[in-house]
Amino acid sequence: MLIEIFDTTLRDGTQGESINLSVQDKILIAKRLDEFGIDIIEGGWPGSNPKDEEFFNKVKNVNFKHAKLCAFGSTARLLSDVENDLNLNALLNAETPIVSIFGKTWRLHSSKGLGISDEENAELIYKSIEFIKSHGREVVFDAEHFFDGYKDDKTFSYKMLKAAESAGASAIVLCDTNGGTLPNEVSEIVKDIKNRFTIKIGIHAHNDSELAVANSLAAVNAGAEHVQGTFNGVGERCGNANLSSIIPNLILKLKHQTNQQSNLKNLTAISNYIYELMNLAPNSRAAFTGKSAFAHKGGVHVSAVMKDGRMYEHIEPSTVGNKQRVLVSDLSGQSNVKYKAKEIGVDISDNKELSKKLVTHIKNLEYDGYQFDGAEGSFELLLRSEMNEYSPFFNVVDSKVNVFYDDKGHSKSEAVLKVEVENEIEHTASDGDGPVHALDNALRKALLRFYPEISLIKLVDYKVRVLDEKDGTTAKVRVMIESSDGTETWSTVGVSRNIIEASFIAISDSINYKLFQYQKEKEKLAN
Amino acid sequence: MLIEIFDTTLRDGTQGESINLSVQDKILIAKRLDEFGIDIIEGGWPGSNPKDEEFFNKVKNVNFKHAKLCAFGSTARLLSDVENDLNLNALLNAETPIVSIFGKTWRLHSSKGLGISDEENAELIYKSIEFIKSHGREVVFDAEHFFDGYKDDKTFSYKMLKAAESAGASAIVLCDTNGGTLPNEVSEIVKDIKNRFTIKIGIHAHNDSELAVANSLAAVNAGAEHVQGTFNGVGERCGNANLSSIIPNLILKLKHQTNQQSNLKNLTAISNYIYELMNLAPNSRAAFTGKSAFAHKGGVHVSAVMKDGRMYEHIEPSTVGNKQRVLVSDLSGQSNVKYKAKEIGVDISDNKELSKKLVTHIKNLEYDGYQFDGAEGSFELLLRSEMNEYSPFFNVVDSKVNVFYDDKGHSKSEAVLKVEVENEIEHTASDGDGPVHALDNALRKALLRFYPEISLIKLVDYKVRVLDEKDGTTAKVRVMIESSDGTETWSTVGVSRNIIEASFIAISDSINYKLFQYQKEKEKLAN
Repeated sequence: MLIEIFDTTLRDGTQGESINLSVQDKILIAKRLDEFGIDIIEGGWPGSNPKDEEFFNKVKNVNFKHAKLCAFGSTARLLSDVENDLNLNALLNAETPIVSIFGKTWRLHSSKGLGISDEENAELIYKSIEFIKSHGREVVFDAEHFFDGYKDDKTFSYKMLKAAESAGASAIVLCDTNGGTLPNEVSEIVKDIKNRFTIKIGIHAHNDSELAVANSLAAVNAGAEHVQGTFNGVGERCGNANLSSIIPNLILKLKHQTNQQSNLKNLTAISNYIYELMNLAPNSRAAFTGKSAFAHKGGVHVSAVMKDGRMYEHIEPSTVGNKQRVLVSDLSGQSNVKYKAKEIGVDISDNKELSKKLVTHIKNLEYDGYQFDGAEGSFELLLRSEMNEYSPFFNVVDSKVNVFYDDKGHSKSEAVLKVEVENEIEHTASDGDGPVHALDNALRKALLRFYPEISLIKLVDYKVRVLDEKDGTTAKVRVMIESSDGTETWSTVGVSRNIIEASFIAISDSINYKLFQYQKEKEKLAN
Repeated sequence: MLIEIFDTTLRDGTQGESINLSVQDKILIAKRLDEFGIDIIEGGWPGSNPKDEEFFNKVKNVNFKHAKLCAFGSTARLLSDVENDLNLNALLNAETPIVSIFGKTWRLHSSKGLGISDEENAELIYKSIEFIKSHGREVVFDAEHFFDGYKDDKTFSYKMLKAAESAGASAIVLCDTNGGTLPNEVSEIVKDIKNRFTIKIGIHAHNDSELAVANSLAAVNAGAEHVQGTFNGVGERCGNANLSSIIPNLILKLKHQTNQQSNLKNLTAISNYIYELMNLAPNSRAAFTGKSAFAHKGGVHVSAVMKDGRMYEHIEPSTVGNKQRVLVSDLSGQSNVKYKAKEIGVDISDNKELSKKLVTHIKNLEYDGYQFDGAEGSFELLLRSEMNEYSPFFNVVDSKVNVFYDDKGHSKSEAVLKVEVENEIEHTASDGDGPVHALDNALRKALLRFYPEISLIKLVDYKVRVLDEKDGTTAKVRVMIESSDGTETWSTVGVSRNIIEASFIAISDSINYKLFQYQKEKEKLAN
């Protein structure tokens, strides 16, 4: 069956806590959704805020390959004056081929919320849809709180759907607005509606019971042909149904057709892109698209996936653009280390002694508070150094960091470094926003003369974890940093009782890692 | 129906990426799980690493009220020598009343992974369970990859379950190890097994398709009486089935009985506690327990929930220990502040101006990165200062911190402070294990002459969170500390781009808070 995908990342998604998109961000996301093959993109609620109005104005100049744009709004305020309703007219002004109208389909809301009778509510739905239709737009009807309304009084809910159907809606979307419905209930109720109506049925689920994906699939199994959701499951409260999971489940598991089929390998990329524009840290544990989704830590799992990926992977990671990873930790054995080594292009499977030595070394470091899953850069340096292939590119002979207040009471940080490179000493100093920043600046300054290529390196992520929190200010601290030179990103780690030292170890590792990569490249070119 | 809850946060949960628990953390979590009413706690895999072995040694001295401890391990390695199998003997040495044994129930694994015949695999399962049983332990059999094995060849999977049942297992747990099975498949397969076996059936689901909670509920609906999972859904790859969602769904939605029923209002607290010990940022969007789970942003939703919570909330938040929040609304801000003030014994409900001023002040500070949720000490100082009841007990006139390496290459930290107390200046200096420790030492030294009571104050917890991780070493840092004087504990917070300054703000607040409490007590005694 062909399932229509309706994306509401830009509308319901932005109702989520801490989610804030500029108009430009929204346009960028809309373009990306179109490239991915999304059928309908709900861009916002033009009647509710100026930003959404601006979005619809600007998006008129964008050409979409496949996606149809949709504006969202409620039924009219007053039954007596539908044609002059501000909200409905704002919807028309958005000039989208599709308009989604939500109406009350739970009596609690129409009678207690709006204070109107069942008949008035049905008429409000009918007239609002009819008005939009009369202007040549396609209307998707969102039956708000449908499942709660159905459980409360099914004849009431039938009546409201009937009004929407008669007014000429192209689809009726059953909304689990509060997210409290269970998959078996969704299944039964959708089946009943499918038996009574011929119009296209859709599902709009929320994740308040951690069941939104299951509810969406249950609805499709019961006959729904239109699925609404958001990328990465963003949205109000616990979020909307997650399209990043629903789309691969529909295609790979339920063997339905969707228009995203040929782009499925771009799924992980679009998920990360949207996290990036929303300035949210990606959920590493996300199904299908997460960084950890195909990451193996336990020794048993690792040795098995090395024989056959199917053993601990439900799908081939590349079908959704993700990849297999093996983590190194105190739970891991020699097979993890071997796999990791292979990933960075070193085959140590014949060298039992080396891999044994490495495992012991790693376990000791982890006992000291190091952690190498998530610090691939430091792991590679460790491996190369055990193999006598790598030694640090510089030696810090002396370092001082001073933190003090100036005359005006502003805190100041200054680092003074003596660094030795190829028997030359560079003595340098730098200020910074804090002691770590000052040290970072000073080190880069000292090395630039010898290694101009480090000017490309940027710190993109910096994390601090206090290890023995109960030890208060004498506790050990682990710093993990992620760096990038624009083409590659890598992570390194440092541990110490002194946070400045821990940071400095991670920063030094980061620079050494990249210098080692550049050296390898140069050697390759020379050969 | 009474459903047995089996927690594997400490075993399968720790297989998740970046999850690392000390033995002490594991014991603390086990105690908390017991208090919450968990039936079985799987503590680790004693045969696989020394940390888990140490855990089982130490946990022997802990008295649990209700929970039974369980050690996890695989079937024997060699069929010919089950009695001397190292792994099985490590399980016995763990001295737990329950042992969980996992065995292969997908031919791909037994034939390709272990290289043994169907009959040998069945015998391995039988003999391994029999051996553990013969030492008086209860055995839970984890049928690894059960659903994949069943779909591949159901007669094979029946045979393996039969072996476990005949050997005397008390329960057979059907594992969706790869997390790729759909709820309708789980439902059908569990029904078939329930028709063929009389033994207790359990479910162990993984979240690779974002369906682990749905699969667990589908299994229970089909007759399973034992559910395995982890708190916050931590675990390998995308994680295990999330008990923080399954437990409330079982109790509130499916109306089953579980032993956690009377503690359900502690659900949010235990979820946060476990995040805290794992040093993971809590998932604010988590169903039931997330900070945003009952947070309303849209104007329509806010005015509706103020009339009747049911309008946009699937359950009453307090049933799971969570609370309704209203975002960006000035009104909600004031009631929050009033609520908090009342908590520390100050009634400001009549003082509209004060609470308005406080809300603005707090919003500005929160915008800067402060958070008062876990920093009640700093909140009280803020409140008392707005009420003109409190001003700081000391003034830091000048401070310097130096971090450097001595002749022997050891890193050294020294802090120099000028502190003003009642018009006297104390000029002092101190060493420390790191810069924060040095500063902490110096401040205490400077103040001791004026306030000898501070000698009782100890730092018991110290946490660092990088706020804008993408800004690298110039990112803002939030430090939260917990202090104690032996009778009371309190927490304070500091934020800065300079980690030393952020720490110093939190330490200063901590000492001021306690001096303010002592002063109040003295005034009380004097009256």
